[in-house]
Amino acid sequence: MNAATMSAGAQAVGIDVGGTSVKGVLLSSDGSLLAAHRLPTPSPDPTGEGVVETVAQVRDALTQDRQLPVGVALPGVVDEDSGMAVYSVNLGWRDVPMLEELTKRLGTEVALSHDVRAGGVAEARTGAAAGRAGVVAFVPVGTGVAAAVLIDGKPLVAGGYAGEIGQLLITHGEFQGQRLEEVASARATALRAGVASAREVASAAARGSAVSQQVWNETITVLADGLAGLSVTVAPTVIVIGGGLALAGRQLIVPLGEELERRLPGLRTPELMPAAHGDAAAAVGAALLGLEQRA
Amino acid sequence: MNAATMSAGAQAVGIDVGGTSVKGVLLSSDGSLLAAHRLPTPSPDPTGEGVVETVAQVRDALTQDRQLPVGVALPGVVDEDSGMAVYSVNLGWRDVPMLEELTKRLGTEVALSHDVRAGGVAEARTGAAAGRAGVVAFVPVGTGVAAAVLIDGKPLVAGGYAGEIGQLLITHGEFQGQRLEEVASARATALRAGVASAREVASAAARGSAVSQQVWNETITVLADGLAGLSVTVAPTVIVIGGGLALAGRQLIVPLGEELERRLPGLRTPELMPAAHGDAAAAVGAALLGLEQRA
Repeated sequence: MNAATMSAGAQAVGIDVGGTSVKGVLLSSDGSLLAAHRLPTPSPDPTGEGVVETVAQVRDALTQDRQLPVGVALPGVVDEDSGMAVYSVNLGWRDVPMLEELTKRLGTEVALSHDVRAGGVAEARTGAAAGRAGVVAFVPVGTGVAAAVLIDGKPLVAGGYAGEIGQLLITHGEFQGQRLEEVASARATALRAGVASAREVASAAARGSAVSQQVWNETITVLADGLAGLSVTVAPTVIVIGGGLALAGRQLIVPLGEELERRLPGLRTPELMPAAHGDAAAAVGAALLGLEQRA
Repeated sequence: MNAATMSAGAQAVGIDVGGTSVKGVLLSSDGSLLAAHRLPTPSPDPTGEGVVETVAQVRDALTQDRQLPVGVALPGVVDEDSGMAVYSVNLGWRDVPMLEELTKRLGTEVALSHDVRAGGVAEARTGAAAGRAGVVAFVPVGTGVAAAVLIDGKPLVAGGYAGEIGQLLITHGEFQGQRLEEVASARATALRAGVASAREVASAAARGSAVSQQVWNETITVLADGLAGLSVTVAPTVIVIGGGLALAGRQLIVPLGEELERRLPGLRTPELMPAAHGDAAAAVGAALLGLEQRA
């Protein structure tokens, strides 16, 4: 979609700054998607100026109403409390005051967030975990692995460092010395099997390919270790799995749930669910946070 | 101490219901300890009546002021939000409405809490982590291993299931199939070395005992795995280690910190500190929660 809309029902813009594209959505007051627009990410962009300009272009393509609240989700280490983009390998920035820069350029209220936490907000409010009580976790498994932990509906920030489960070093077995996401991400899973996507690995495994079955099992085992550490710490009632890995649906959720349950003897096992918002989660969540900030 | 005090400065009573004794403290307005009293725990006590009566006796021994707020910390699974003692193996109870029963018997405001979370409150407010910003974790390593996670000073409850890191199944290596606390608790450490306490294991290891060195290293390695999973999830700035294991001081903290840092490549490593309140932590924290509830 590429729409310049002046819709009476339009309530907020959400923009997700990704490694390759800046994705924007226009949400109505009932949370439904009115329009979407995307542009390539200027990268690297150490000062953040290119990203700020691209975000403004995406907003302008989505709506002529310059007063709509805008939520912006950023990758890397983001500290929502201070409004700082602390660090991003891909974009090459360190300690950029993005909230201030975005507010100045956009001329309206901006809600700054982290892409994974924004995605968690979308899945918890209007996605797979909508209406669920208790702590909710959102774990996108794509080019990397990370987690958002939502407590009473609010994402845990911890200075921007919460949820980095993909960075955990594996200390035992075959993958010793690698980080969790170097084995269990969708990208690493596809690479190990020599195919283009994790979904292809799952399909080949279902058709009986021994190599794909082994790769798929390795990913599930390593991912279950990470989810088990998260589960004993914050005891989520639901873990929503997103990213490319979740496209395998039940072929992921069922064995992953079994491995997780085995690691939590006598404890309450979180329910696992595939994500509902797909790759729009962070933009939708950013828009919801924009709405809430104004409310 | 065994004191019946009517002190003008007395502000709150804190009572920790442990597996073997019910420990009470009387705190002044500045958080200092005015008196302590303990009685044996009636156990098992499936209805909770024996515990309620013992708590009342401890309170009465500490103060004649029946209007002082009382904080009570319980073991097992406790849901502070509903006021229920959900489950305890040692006491044999399941779904006992302890907040209601204690309030009726004591005739004053009662703040119900969980022993580990109450200990975390004590260490975060007036103990090892006093004045520290960010998420704080408290990990008592005694007969078992558990964690309290304090976010903006408030313990995460999650229906009573948060922080059960000691229950995590070990899936690799020599201790495969055991739970974390079956290897890394102070009790398991002493048992494996064939001595009476974890502190003795540390002393023997320092004197060059090969068996004790191996046992000590095993405990540190397994505990570091648990702390790493907690750290990537909630990113604490400080982890306070309590229980019998922490009595080893630097002999625990230094190698445990190294093992933890190794597991968190490129991430912010939490600072490790030994606990300040010793085995009074839960009672002190319960009293602080009693004070805050009234405030």
